Amino acid sequence: MQVDQERLRRDIERNGQFGAIDVDEGHGRTVLTGSDADRRAREYFVSRLTDAGLSVSVDAVGNIVGRWTPEGANPDAAPVAAGSHLDSVPEGGIFDGPLGVYAALEAVRTLQASDADLRRPVEVVSFTEEEGARFSFGLLGSSVATGVRTAEEALSLTDDEGRTLEKHLQNVGFAGDDEIRAGDWSAWAELHVEQGTTLESAGTQVGVVDAITGITNCRVEVDGEADHAGATPMYERSDAFTTASEFVVDFRRAAEDVVTSISPTAVGTVGRCDVTPNARNIVPGHVELHMDIRDVEYESMNVLADRARQSLSRLERDAPVRTEFDRYRDQQPSRMADRCVEAAVGAAEACDIIPQKMHSAAMHDTANVSSVTDTVLLFAPSRNGLSHNPLEWTDWDDCAAATDVLATTLARLAS
Amino acid sequence: MQVDQERLRRDIERNGQFGAIDVDEGHGRTVLTGSDADRRAREYFVSRLTDAGLSVSVDAVGNIVGRWTPEGANPDAAPVAAGSHLDSVPEGGIFDGPLGVYAALEAVRTLQASDADLRRPVEVVSFTEEEGARFSFGLLGSSVATGVRTAEEALSLTDDEGRTLEKHLQNVGFAGDDEIRAGDWSAWAELHVEQGTTLESAGTQVGVVDAITGITNCRVEVDGEADHAGATPMYERSDAFTTASEFVVDFRRAAEDVVTSISPTAVGTVGRCDVTPNARNIVPGHVELHMDIRDVEYESMNVLADRARQSLSRLERDAPVRTEFDRYRDQQPSRMADRCVEAAVGAAEACDIIPQKMHSAAMHDTANVSSVTDTVLLFAPSRNGLSHNPLEWTDWDDCAAATDVLATTLARLAS
Repeated sequence: MQVDQERLRRDIERNGQFGAIDVDEGHGRTVLTGSDADRRAREYFVSRLTDAGLSVSVDAVGNIVGRWTPEGANPDAAPVAAGSHLDSVPEGGIFDGPLGVYAALEAVRTLQASDADLRRPVEVVSFTEEEGARFSFGLLGSSVATGVRTAEEALSLTDDEGRTLEKHLQNVGFAGDDEIRAGDWSAWAELHVEQGTTLESAGTQVGVVDAITGITNCRVEVDGEADHAGATPMYERSDAFTTASEFVVDFRRAAEDVVTSISPTAVGTVGRCDVTPNARNIVPGHVELHMDIRDVEYESMNVLADRARQSLSRLERDAPVRTEFDRYRDQQPSRMADRCVEAAVGAAEACDIIPQKMHSAAMHDTANVSSVTDTVLLFAPSRNGLSHNPLEWTDWDDCAAATDVLATTLARLAS
Repeated sequence: MQVDQERLRRDIERNGQFGAIDVDEGHGRTVLTGSDADRRAREYFVSRLTDAGLSVSVDAVGNIVGRWTPEGANPDAAPVAAGSHLDSVPEGGIFDGPLGVYAALEAVRTLQASDADLRRPVEVVSFTEEEGARFSFGLLGSSVATGVRTAEEALSLTDDEGRTLEKHLQNVGFAGDDEIRAGDWSAWAELHVEQGTTLESAGTQVGVVDAITGITNCRVEVDGEADHAGATPMYERSDAFTTASEFVVDFRRAAEDVVTSISPTAVGTVGRCDVTPNARNIVPGHVELHMDIRDVEYESMNVLADRARQSLSRLERDAPVRTEFDRYRDQQPSRMADRCVEAAVGAAEACDIIPQKMHSAAMHDTANVSSVTDTVLLFAPSRNGLSHNPLEWTDWDDCAAATDVLATTLARLAS
């Protein structure tokens, strides 16, 4: 299976013009759900689906599906679907999302021109608001398509200015009335840029992901007492920041313990720290920390979250502070289906590529879809591992090679 | 000596109207150097000096002095001076500064009506930009009057919008051409609100300060590498925030050690922490901390700063980070003159007040003046220790009692 690299490149470059930002180096874009850039990206995508003879559906939350029923296929068979998303983070890159959408379309166009004997329809999908840049919830469109959230719940979410998703979708003309149910798909494949350096370091063009890590996010609050840094003796302080610092040191040690003794793939990060009032001459009265815990094993994530709680209990006993712990996000790890992983590995080998088996530490719509049908996730290399950044880059040869593998995978799954 | 409490109160309340802010509780004001509120506060002060028969001088940086030469005094004798400042922090209180200025004027008015036999002129002083709220450098006016800084240096300082002190003073009509030299004063006394709870806890109306702590400020920078919190294994991280947290824990321990073994009055605070990029899903790449070290003993301040440096060296050896340490402010402790402290203690006792001997952990213009002449600093109680806040409050009885002591102190020093 040999895709048309130039045709794929033209689609991705054209899509990259919607919401393009002016940068000295690289190619940046800002495509927030409901923006004019979003409308133009969606309209262009629909025109490209139509150009290729696909029939287009749009659901209530703006997910877009183009369906192709191959000659000789059973139009009532459960389809095989592939895709990703077209939205971006503010000042993001042009590959994160669009590569997977247009690679799926390019795969279909290539299959259309091939003599592959397919028995199932093939669908090309773009999910709404994967990044969560406007409505705070990532994977929003796929959460509705997989029944994690109802359309009504999603449509009533509001952005920072209080406007609902429903209003934004009406504005761009993509509040559809079709139903898109990922559970009806026989299988799903997503191609995405890696956003890490595993493939680049290994010199491999394609990664086949067999698991997506779970993510737990926790908020820790430490309450002390803001006081004059000069006038408050050391032994009369209730310094929220020294306690928070002890917690960070504890948590790092706990993460290293879990890596050593339970699961080498576990990671734990305190990435955000807000000190109040944050003035050099005031003893900090309040600190808020945000943690991120990920692993392919749910058990080790729980161990690490428990260790964090225990650390806070100990610190609260030892110092005149109060602490709170809130595990506000908890997404379990996702396993890809063996048959889809095998199809992808076989497809890669058929394309003369020895794929890298790996897990994904970043979250993708595929995590939602894997809860309702068989899935696989393919990765293309990211230069220097960069993404969410105008310097995000994947060589066009690598884009094409990964799209070859995607097309071959879809052919195998649809046969 | 019995001052006129109502007259003092009217001046402070009237002054509190300039730059007054609307608050639910308390009395707030914002008086930034060069603002309209500052102009009005200065003009009112000059009118009150003139009303009392004082001759007014204004120097290049807007410091204002009113001079009274008592009958029978030698007009060429070195004067005794007292005062404080009229500027405020944004949304500050009405006592911090103005109490000392108007208490000095009230003391002179009371001395004028008394039969005290004074041999020296008495001067009432308001220093420019004590708070450093507009030009970042606190104690600015007194730094020029004491020769720490030249008038030219001070006048060329710029605010956040690039406007110079010179421009601001011209705008408010207080760019004077008199010379005010604190070194020419025989002695100096400042009354200020305590900004702490020592007096309130002790139930004492007046504090006599014998030392102002030195202040050292240091900036610590920790450079690691910002990385994806999911995709970067624990053992490949260069996490600036875990190192910064270890530093904060070390520094706290060092401060406690210094308190226990060297100087019980030493304090060390890490009050400010800025994490970059400060996102929960990104390993922190950079952390900036600001520290505040104070004591009445310079040696213990140095020990604590050295311990901080040693901690960073150790952390840099143990983790893949780079650190920087910058001791960017270093003000040595100031000793009040024994003769002035004795005069103040004697004055309080003459007013039937047993004063609290104490040190000041907050910085005041008196610290600058103490480098060129004999000084003493008096404190009045602060309700709940609050200041820089519309809830800052000192009972009018306490204001009057402290002003009685100030007047009596000035009489003793001028006799």
